[in-house]
Amino acid sequence: MKMVIMAGGQGTRFWPLSRKSSPKQFLKVLGEKSLFQMTVQRLGEIGGMENVYVVCSADYADLVLSQAPGLGDEQVIVEPAPRNTAPCIGLAASYLAARFPDELMGVFPSDHLIQDEKEFGRVLASASNLARSGYLVTFGIRPEFPATGYGYLEQGEEIPGKDGVMAFKVVRFTEKPDLETAERFRASGRYCWNSGMFVWSLAAILNAIREHMPDLDDIIQRLGDCRGISGKGRELFEKAAPVSIDYGVMEKSEDVVVIPCDLQWSDVGDWNAVAEILARRGSATGSGTVVEVDSRNCFVHSDSGKTVALAGVENLIIVETGDSIMICSRSRSQDVGKIVEILKRQSPELI
Amino acid sequence: MKMVIMAGGQGTRFWPLSRKSSPKQFLKVLGEKSLFQMTVQRLGEIGGMENVYVVCSADYADLVLSQAPGLGDEQVIVEPAPRNTAPCIGLAASYLAARFPDELMGVFPSDHLIQDEKEFGRVLASASNLARSGYLVTFGIRPEFPATGYGYLEQGEEIPGKDGVMAFKVVRFTEKPDLETAERFRASGRYCWNSGMFVWSLAAILNAIREHMPDLDDIIQRLGDCRGISGKGRELFEKAAPVSIDYGVMEKSEDVVVIPCDLQWSDVGDWNAVAEILARRGSATGSGTVVEVDSRNCFVHSDSGKTVALAGVENLIIVETGDSIMICSRSRSQDVGKIVEILKRQSPELI
Repeated sequence: MKMVIMAGGQGTRFWPLSRKSSPKQFLKVLGEKSLFQMTVQRLGEIGGMENVYVVCSADYADLVLSQAPGLGDEQVIVEPAPRNTAPCIGLAASYLAARFPDELMGVFPSDHLIQDEKEFGRVLASASNLARSGYLVTFGIRPEFPATGYGYLEQGEEIPGKDGVMAFKVVRFTEKPDLETAERFRASGRYCWNSGMFVWSLAAILNAIREHMPDLDDIIQRLGDCRGISGKGRELFEKAAPVSIDYGVMEKSEDVVVIPCDLQWSDVGDWNAVAEILARRGSATGSGTVVEVDSRNCFVHSDSGKTVALAGVENLIIVETGDSIMICSRSRSQDVGKIVEILKRQSPELI
Repeated sequence: MKMVIMAGGQGTRFWPLSRKSSPKQFLKVLGEKSLFQMTVQRLGEIGGMENVYVVCSADYADLVLSQAPGLGDEQVIVEPAPRNTAPCIGLAASYLAARFPDELMGVFPSDHLIQDEKEFGRVLASASNLARSGYLVTFGIRPEFPATGYGYLEQGEEIPGKDGVMAFKVVRFTEKPDLETAERFRASGRYCWNSGMFVWSLAAILNAIREHMPDLDDIIQRLGDCRGISGKGRELFEKAAPVSIDYGVMEKSEDVVVIPCDLQWSDVGDWNAVAEILARRGSATGSGTVVEVDSRNCFVHSDSGKTVALAGVENLIIVETGDSIMICSRSRSQDVGKIVEILKRQSPELI
């Protein structure tokens, strides 16, 4: 299987640490390795480093190669422009099909955490079996709480497998439901979060794109083997509709299956997620020192080695870098995006 | 009148901005001038810069002269060691008496704020009149709330004045009362906060020291005109008991009077006091920029020009310097002292 890591994201939720030049997936918020590096290592150990590929914009290609020195140049596929996941996956599938027409393809976000790597390996093997039968396989995460920020997959008829891993036909995709719906989904036991990880054969995904996104198929055909950083490829690629693979292909295909799994997964969506993942390690990460007086449940990431002293405060997230300090309530770490919106106007040099 | 500013304090309440090398009185927490500079300016405008003197340790002499370039070397009296206010005042009185034996002496803290300077001038003139009659004059602040952190002066018999300013014999000094007592004091209308400002004749204070603190008198006599930074003067001065002028002299003298006054005074005791004084100017001082999302009643002092972004927080004080960040609840800014105690052991280089 060729395993493709999508590393083109430009999220702002980890400001002030995340910047346009170094978005979330390349940050070392959880320890000594970035989420991208953990993803490369996880896949490399399971499927061999020579089968790991990365899709990203030209801006991040150097960062990718410096954080993953085990990858060769030909393992980095440059997206000519950010056009959401369907064009990105189409481009990567086309690139791989030209070289390995009979292979399977796995697609993985670069910025998620999977703590149960053994289970992940087991599920990936099972997904490969299903993909060889022509299915488009998704990885479903059993909901731990009624999340309203994720997409949900509804399980239908069970697909018989031979390795003890259960899989189901996907009846429906639902984007970010309201709380009531999310609670109903969770209670029913028939819904999973859509993890954004996929396994399929190159033939199956390219056929599905041809069937459900003929315009994208046309663009990919005309691009040929272009890796897309030159002017002409870029112009062509920019014409692709910026839609997700879920919307463009998966919701329309009859061949989608889901494997519900418990991977100790997290999309590490904001600073509070980091704080929760690291809760056992104490209140601080980064290079700084924390001094606390009568303070509770605070999380500090100090990027420039400062001492951070707290007195009589609780439930705060504090992140500092060379030029900025962000302080938010733990329940409001989603609002970092609003800070970034303000700064885009006021101080774009900080973004 | 010779006006002496006591600038030897080493308070830690303004950490991380205050350090051993630059304590509270020299910090520009309220704007472009330090509290010391505001004090020098206030007194210079009322009584002439040539009559302003500063007592401080050798460590701060350069800082004093750089912040108050209008002062000559001979206007800086160096304390050989910090021994509380009685030795400090005795030293300064002796230094001045050798030059101007018939003068009045005013004593003023270097780190308090007086916003009603006109009233201050009026009270100072009245105090001079009383001091010429031999009284030891204190300035009392009418209590605005039942403070438990200040000393109180109890007013007795009224002293007739000729300029419409009321003065009273002081019946008793009470150090930091409990809340119940402070409430009773305030309700009675007969108590004032002790502002630590005094006016008296040099003869009167030196006589009072001779009477009530004969050991200190002996030390001062033997020191002669020494300004005390050399080894011998230091050894001698260090023998002085480290007591306040209130405890050593004022509580024991029969000649103490208080002028109750409304000076829009503040001892600027902690960061929260700064926040309250500056409330009208918005949430930030220093050189940084503040970006707020759904945040209330926070105060930011950024010393190194950083952007400080807040989301979903309230009632915080945030102070940052090149090496440290301090975040406390507004109601807990007294606890900065506890932070400093911890750092003295853990990271003395930050103090």
